[in-house]
Amino acid sequence: MKPETIAAAAGSTNAHPFDDAIALASQGDDLWRGHTSAPYGNMVGPFGGITAAQALNAVLIHPKRLGQPVAFTVNFAAALADGPFELQARPARTNRSTQHWIIEMRQGEHTVATATAVTALRRDTWGASEVPMPQAPAPQDVPPPTRRGRVEWLQRYEMRFIDGAIPPAWDGAHFDSSRTRLWMRDHPPRPLDFASLTALSDVFFPRIWRRRATMTPIGTVSMTIYFHASQAQLQRTGSGYLLGQAQGQAFRDGYFDQTAQLWNEAAELLVTTHQVVYYKE
Amino acid sequence: MKPETIAAAAGSTNAHPFDDAIALASQGDDLWRGHTSAPYGNMVGPFGGITAAQALNAVLIHPKRLGQPVAFTVNFAAALADGPFELQARPARTNRSTQHWIIEMRQGEHTVATATAVTALRRDTWGASEVPMPQAPAPQDVPPPTRRGRVEWLQRYEMRFIDGAIPPAWDGAHFDSSRTRLWMRDHPPRPLDFASLTALSDVFFPRIWRRRATMTPIGTVSMTIYFHASQAQLQRTGSGYLLGQAQGQAFRDGYFDQTAQLWNEAAELLVTTHQVVYYKE
Repeated sequence: MKPETIAAAAGSTNAHPFDDAIALASQGDDLWRGHTSAPYGNMVGPFGGITAAQALNAVLIHPKRLGQPVAFTVNFAAALADGPFELQARPARTNRSTQHWIIEMRQGEHTVATATAVTALRRDTWGASEVPMPQAPAPQDVPPPTRRGRVEWLQRYEMRFIDGAIPPAWDGAHFDSSRTRLWMRDHPPRPLDFASLTALSDVFFPRIWRRRATMTPIGTVSMTIYFHASQAQLQRTGSGYLLGQAQGQAFRDGYFDQTAQLWNEAAELLVTTHQVVYYKE
Repeated sequence: MKPETIAAAAGSTNAHPFDDAIALASQGDDLWRGHTSAPYGNMVGPFGGITAAQALNAVLIHPKRLGQPVAFTVNFAAALADGPFELQARPARTNRSTQHWIIEMRQGEHTVATATAVTALRRDTWGASEVPMPQAPAPQDVPPPTRRGRVEWLQRYEMRFIDGAIPPAWDGAHFDSSRTRLWMRDHPPRPLDFASLTALSDVFFPRIWRRRATMTPIGTVSMTIYFHASQAQLQRTGSGYLLGQAQGQAFRDGYFDQTAQLWNEAAELLVTTHQVVYYKE
């Protein structure tokens, strides 16, 4: 099947809501058309993780793509309006084993997101991990939250908080650490791929909410993902849980950062990811 | 002075080599022309940090820039050839207090680097740091290395390794941790600004060299910098030392990542930065 056909087929009614959400229709050279997805709606505009996955998908289904994603950065320029959007994904440079992409998402005249990606043909080499997966009870032994989240996209994910959950009360209690650890996966479960791994890299609630127990307005402005996972590892991971760990490093003058890691149940580090987030006060 | 005049003036012979290296001449709307700098030469092509600083400088001196840099990602698409390059820096979206930039660096027909930046007007808010500066002796009490680096750009930086220095021998000894801590600054000293902070974010030698004591060929493919520093903090930091800390998280299938932090001598966290690096074997 040609990539355009795959993308169109994903819009069928029996598909997982995630496949519906990231479906793109080819509009000719380097141009794709998609649509915001109500099931992944956030308070204002869509869940950033789904916007990121849509942007990366324009690379993943591009007929000129070389290799698998290694690095991806998306910058959220504005809240998307409900409705269609256009994605331009252009291979700015293709080398023998690496390729560099520039991506721009627009609604009408307006740029709503910018992104860059690096894809590469990867080879088997010496390897190691320096961040062991934290000790944690099995996913089945960690209860899901009793309260349901108030926004639609939260229903698309199963989250079982090991520690550092959303504070029990918005009472301004200070926590010394913003760290959160949880088991997570798509709901309903869906076999992991690079697009869903991209969205899963953004499921962590804002570190400042944990740190201050105060619900200040926030918005991610930029997120970077480094993919350490191979296609084979994603396939082995299947629809199992990921252990996600996220922590802030600095909160200052309206912006904080977050550094995060995602492991599969076999304790393989699949992703390291970072983001910088606006906060109001 | 208009930004073009500032950029041109930086090319004078009395300037610091860093100012010469990042000087850009306006070529009209969103277009700038620069030149690789022999003093910042690496084994093949220039030191990546100087390429990054040149790319960000096209935003810093752009007459339409709004605010200060918050996030910057640069992707190294190819080794630059010695000679001129062209930079296109385009504000893709300007909001009330944030601005999103797309940057492309070319030599002739070829894209050699891509980048995105977010700049913002920042406001005083609640703040905190979750990564305290490591305990370390004063910079003056840490001796500089006795061996001189073999490439030109290493002469442009003063580096005093606290721990995790380059292995004493390339004997394939395995180290459990790739972590390096050092005091560092421009050589000769130069007052810190966003451009030099960008280059300083890339001075760490490759984590895999530390980890394996094996000099495998490497090349950074993508680097992201989150700027927590305000203009006032940079001014207070002046030409003092920065404490840099870098560590790898995963090494697999030809790519490893690095997470790093830079503090000033007053223990203020100025930058958190990450990169992903190709390695041969």
